Amino acid sequence: MRRIDKLVREWKEEGLLLPIWMENDRICLANQHALPLNEETLTISEVSVLAEAIKDMTIRGSGAIAIAGAYGFLLEALQGGDKDSILRAGKILRQTRETAVNLLKTIDQLSDCVRDYQGTDLAGLVEEKVCDVLARQLRYEKQLGTYGAELIRDGDAILTHCHSGAIAGSGYGGRALSVIRKAHEQGKQIHVYVSETRPYLQGARITAYELGKFRIPHTLITDGMSGYLMRSGMIQKVVVGSDRVTACGDLINKIGTYMHALAAKANNVPFYTATSIHTIDFEIQSGMGVPVEYRDSEEVTHFGGIPIAAPGTKAVYPSFDVTPSCLISAIVTEQGVIAAPFGESLAAMKMTHTDH
Amino acid sequence: MRRIDKLVREWKEEGLLLPIWMENDRICLANQHALPLNEETLTISEVSVLAEAIKDMTIRGSGAIAIAGAYGFLLEALQGGDKDSILRAGKILRQTRETAVNLLKTIDQLSDCVRDYQGTDLAGLVEEKVCDVLARQLRYEKQLGTYGAELIRDGDAILTHCHSGAIAGSGYGGRALSVIRKAHEQGKQIHVYVSETRPYLQGARITAYELGKFRIPHTLITDGMSGYLMRSGMIQKVVVGSDRVTACGDLINKIGTYMHALAAKANNVPFYTATSIHTIDFEIQSGMGVPVEYRDSEEVTHFGGIPIAAPGTKAVYPSFDVTPSCLISAIVTEQGVIAAPFGESLAAMKMTHTDH
Repeated sequence: MRRIDKLVREWKEEGLLLPIWMENDRICLANQHALPLNEETLTISEVSVLAEAIKDMTIRGSGAIAIAGAYGFLLEALQGGDKDSILRAGKILRQTRETAVNLLKTIDQLSDCVRDYQGTDLAGLVEEKVCDVLARQLRYEKQLGTYGAELIRDGDAILTHCHSGAIAGSGYGGRALSVIRKAHEQGKQIHVYVSETRPYLQGARITAYELGKFRIPHTLITDGMSGYLMRSGMIQKVVVGSDRVTACGDLINKIGTYMHALAAKANNVPFYTATSIHTIDFEIQSGMGVPVEYRDSEEVTHFGGIPIAAPGTKAVYPSFDVTPSCLISAIVTEQGVIAAPFGESLAAMKMTHTDH
Repeated sequence: MRRIDKLVREWKEEGLLLPIWMENDRICLANQHALPLNEETLTISEVSVLAEAIKDMTIRGSGAIAIAGAYGFLLEALQGGDKDSILRAGKILRQTRETAVNLLKTIDQLSDCVRDYQGTDLAGLVEEKVCDVLARQLRYEKQLGTYGAELIRDGDAILTHCHSGAIAGSGYGGRALSVIRKAHEQGKQIHVYVSETRPYLQGARITAYELGKFRIPHTLITDGMSGYLMRSGMIQKVVVGSDRVTACGDLINKIGTYMHALAAKANNVPFYTATSIHTIDFEIQSGMGVPVEYRDSEEVTHFGGIPIAAPGTKAVYPSFDVTPSCLISAIVTEQGVIAAPFGESLAAMKMTHTDH
């Protein structure tokens, strides 16, 4: 049995919810667009098709697309590709998301290994390295989860926003959901409030789906409800993922995050972001200096293709917002929990951090 | 020409967007459920059908349903009803919304007039009194709008939430939109950000529709976006309606209002509620003492009947939230603008206020 097949079997047995895996030397992909109403698996046997799936967000999330990139190398190698064709595959995959740090780093590492390899079992080498990438991602999520779970108490109700979960990562829990899943595994009685996350509804569609799979009690709410629930004493913690964290601890994350953070601050509810050392951008101080992408406003005016506003209604869709560090109680990383104020502790971390 | 027909014609010519009117002695009703994609007019010739339309929210909004109640009296009177049958119609209409203060008060006033009438032209009396009810509602909205518009500056972008507009009132602008419409009529260059207001989307469906009708520039956003837009300097004022205001100035309004108010406070954006003296509940101090109705959670898990979350996902739908008075910059009423702090000024108003 191939090493990769063994690893996939182990992960499934362990209860991971895989965004992507290998079966009979082909790639299987959970179609995130179809969730939660349809659990579709796409089978892929060409790197160009995989690249397309990364581009069109059939698979998304920083950990998951890094893993997808690695699987692309393996696909090419198992089909008998030589160094050149594997490196060419890497180039195609590298162009799918030019700002996805985790994906780019993974591809560059694998490309270096392939380029430098002098032995005779190129496919074996790639398989070994790809398994390392997968194992590293899972280890990252469990470490992050273990640190973060220390902040969660028995009986807590936890708000989360958007999707920062299993199929955005290795299948364990990605970022925010690794914290929640670990606390649940520790036997803490927790309840999760899932903010639906308009306009794209990642919370309703994917986070609630994953919590159901993991049998973690949860309740769906609209984005405007969290404040009232906090004021009513129904939420004790907020845990969200992170798109980027700046050097001073500002958080760039899915639109709506900032308003949950304001509500948390006003009601003395701790607000945590789960991130990675590698997501901290030491080049940028203030989050308001980060350009926010405005996406297609039809996501706001339409719902599953059906218009919800009068014809011709204009809308805007800034995809992210900025939560200033003063609203964040702690930043959870795979190397430990960083408590506020963040300026100095993040600077110290910059000095000492090593690649995981 | 009947007095009522003349009034309806005048109002239409003036650019009012009527929620309900009379045509050939029958009631015409704009079906609010069908908006904005279909502009349906329902024709009603029985009081029991009108009562059903009030119950099932085909017509809604405190001013609009008070007017609807009045039209019910007129319908019965124009069909030759005697005192008994008109008073019976009043009873049926009174049972539609037992907590709608404005509706109940209107019905009680009309019932008293009918009961006390000694003359021979009962229908003429009812028509006169119903026209008075309509004129009073329009006068209220214009007074409210005039006071509120003083707070709006040329160039302001104004956030509003939910629907507190024309077809919830006489057709002019209801509450929040009377302020906005009056400022626009004064020639101020304003832009309105419309918060879609999940789960029922009153903002997207109705407020944006009305602003389009009144040619007031506007942009639709999701409920979680206002904070980021304020932080980016794109919103200068918040104007919302009110379901209830307590004696200390707490505001009970559509779910999501509180989070807009938090975002406004954090970004030094003035937050105004447009209300009526009669909406202030002097019996209650803290807004958190007001029981909030939890509505059918299927509104959250489904969208136009289509599920958006995995089958079996639980949700909650508190229909209102509470914005504490400390987040409110001023309360706009038909008798003037009340500035914070509210405790004393509201108490003084209680002493002096007269029915409008």
